[in-house]
Amino acid sequence: MIHQAKKMIEQDDKAAGSEQLGIKRVCIIGVGLIGGSFARAIRQAGLVEHIIGCGRNTENLKKAVALGVIDDYSQDVSEAVKDADLVFIATPVGSIKAILAQIKNSLKESAIITDAGSTKVSVIHAVKTIFGYIPENFVPGHPIAGTENSGVEASFAKLYQAHRIILTPLKQTSAQALSVVTRLWQAIGAYVVLMDAQHHDSVLAATSHLPHLLAFSLVNTLTTLDEKQEIFENAAGGFRDFTRIASSDPNMWQDICLANKHALLTHLDLFSSDLDALREALKQDDGDYLNKIFTRAKASRDEFMAKKPT
Amino acid sequence: MIHQAKKMIEQDDKAAGSEQLGIKRVCIIGVGLIGGSFARAIRQAGLVEHIIGCGRNTENLKKAVALGVIDDYSQDVSEAVKDADLVFIATPVGSIKAILAQIKNSLKESAIITDAGSTKVSVIHAVKTIFGYIPENFVPGHPIAGTENSGVEASFAKLYQAHRIILTPLKQTSAQALSVVTRLWQAIGAYVVLMDAQHHDSVLAATSHLPHLLAFSLVNTLTTLDEKQEIFENAAGGFRDFTRIASSDPNMWQDICLANKHALLTHLDLFSSDLDALREALKQDDGDYLNKIFTRAKASRDEFMAKKPT
Repeated sequence: MIHQAKKMIEQDDKAAGSEQLGIKRVCIIGVGLIGGSFARAIRQAGLVEHIIGCGRNTENLKKAVALGVIDDYSQDVSEAVKDADLVFIATPVGSIKAILAQIKNSLKESAIITDAGSTKVSVIHAVKTIFGYIPENFVPGHPIAGTENSGVEASFAKLYQAHRIILTPLKQTSAQALSVVTRLWQAIGAYVVLMDAQHHDSVLAATSHLPHLLAFSLVNTLTTLDEKQEIFENAAGGFRDFTRIASSDPNMWQDICLANKHALLTHLDLFSSDLDALREALKQDDGDYLNKIFTRAKASRDEFMAKKPT
Repeated sequence: MIHQAKKMIEQDDKAAGSEQLGIKRVCIIGVGLIGGSFARAIRQAGLVEHIIGCGRNTENLKKAVALGVIDDYSQDVSEAVKDADLVFIATPVGSIKAILAQIKNSLKESAIITDAGSTKVSVIHAVKTIFGYIPENFVPGHPIAGTENSGVEASFAKLYQAHRIILTPLKQTSAQALSVVTRLWQAIGAYVVLMDAQHHDSVLAATSHLPHLLAFSLVNTLTTLDEKQEIFENAAGGFRDFTRIASSDPNMWQDICLANKHALLTHLDLFSSDLDALREALKQDDGDYLNKIFTRAKASRDEFMAKKPT
C-alpha cells in the first residue's frame, strides 16, 4: 500500500529539470537526515517528478509526507522501488545487505542504485553477495556531510551545498550511471570526488570513524567516574565541541565501526601508539616533546581550517 | 617606564563602581584573551579606575592600549604591580612562579593577588615556594571560559558572561580577599564556584586537559600519514569540531599538561584502558558492546547539552 500525500506540489518546474537527467521517479530508502535532505534538495532544484520514501518508522514517514519531503511512502521496500528510475539507500550500512535482497527482483532494469553508506567496501561486498555480480547501474557513494541529529525533522535542503560527495565507482559501473549520479549531486550544490573504495574507507577511518570512536569512548569513561556530575558541570566550550560527535546515533556508528573494522583498527593502533609516546613524554616531564607534537598539530589544524572556513 | 594611553576614557562611571570593592588600580599580567577580556569587562562595568598591563610582547601591549583595553603598560613586572589594589595573573601556568618572584617585594601590603591558571595545585605550590607561606590576600582562580584564539585582539568583554569561575581558596585565604574577587567576577556576569584545588585539578584533567591532549595527539598522528592531504580534504564538520581545541596555544598547553601531570596521567590511563576494551570488542565483532558504550556516551552528552545549551 502506498500512502499518498494529500496535497501535491506543482510539477511544472520539476518536470523541466528531470528530463535532463532522465530521472522522474526517485525512491529514498531511509528518510532521515541524509535521505530527507537529499529529497528536499532534489525537489527544491526541480530535478525529479516524484519521490517515494521507505523506512521502518511509520511516524517518521508520515512526518516526511506532511513536511513535503516525500510525495508518498511504502513500508514494503520491494513495492517502494518499483518503477523508480533511481534508488537512494540512506540507511545505516549494516542494513543495506538485507535491503538489497528485498529489492533485487523489483527493480526496473534501468534503475540506478546509489547509496550514502559511510563505508564503501562493505556495501560493495553486500551488492556482490546479493546480486552475484556488480550491476552496471550501481554507483556507491558517500556524502561528507551531516550533523549529530537524526530523523526527517533534522533534514534540510542545504545540507550538501559546498560539501564533498565521494563516489567509488567500480570497473563494472557504467559511465552513464556514474554521470547521472554525479550530475544529480552537482545540481544540488555538492562537489563530487571519485575515489577507490578501499582508499575511501582508509581516509574516512582516520578523519571520521576514529574521532567518533574516541569521542564516544571518552564521554563513556567520564560517565563512569565518581566526579561525573561535577565533570560535566564544569565542562566548557572546548569539551562541548570535542564531544559533539558523541551525540551521534549509536546504531549507525555500531554499523560503521563494524563495517570498516580493519581500517579503523589500523588507525586506532597508530593513534594509540602515538598517544603512548606522548604519555611517556608527559611522565618524564619532556616538555619539548609535548610542545613539538602540539605545535605540529596546531599548524596542521590551522592550515586545514584556512582551506575549510565553513 | 610606564607607557600612557594618549586618550583617557572618562572616569566618572568607573569611580562609582570601584568604591564598593575598594579596587581602584588593577594590574593585569598577561594581556591576552583571558587577561584582555577581564580588563575589558571590569572597565565596561565601571568597576575600576585604572588598569595597567604587563607582558613580554610589546606589540600586543601597544595594541591593548590602542584598543582601550588597558590604560598603560610596563614591561617591568615589579614596576607594573606597584600601587595595584589587585593583581590578576593571566599568563601560562609555567610562568607564574617566575612572575611571583619578581613581584613579591613590590606589592602593596593590601594588594589582592588572583590568577587565571588552568591548574591550581601547581600555582599554589609556586606561591608557597616564593613567599614561604600562603599570603591571606592570595585567591587562586580559574575561569572556565576561553576560545582557541589568543592575544589581546581575540579578547572581548562578554567572554565570562554566564560562565563559571572556579576559585580554590586555602585555609589561609582571608574572607575579605575572597569576597572582593568573587564580587568582581559576579559583577561582570560570571558565576563563582568554590572548590578544593586538588579536586579542581582532577575535574579539569578529565573535562579539559585530557580532551586537549587527545585532540593534539590525533591531529598529529594524521599529519604523519601518507594520505595526510586527502584526510584533511575529506574531513567534515565533525572533525572540525572534534579538533578545534588542537588549534590552541602549544606553549600554554605544554605548561598545563606538565603542571597537572598526575591528575592527567590518571585520567589518561583510565581512558586508554576503556579504549583498549572497545578495541577488543571491535576486533571480536562485539556490536552489542560497542552499542552499549555509544548509547551511554550519547545519553550523557545529550543530558549535558540539555543543561548547557550555550
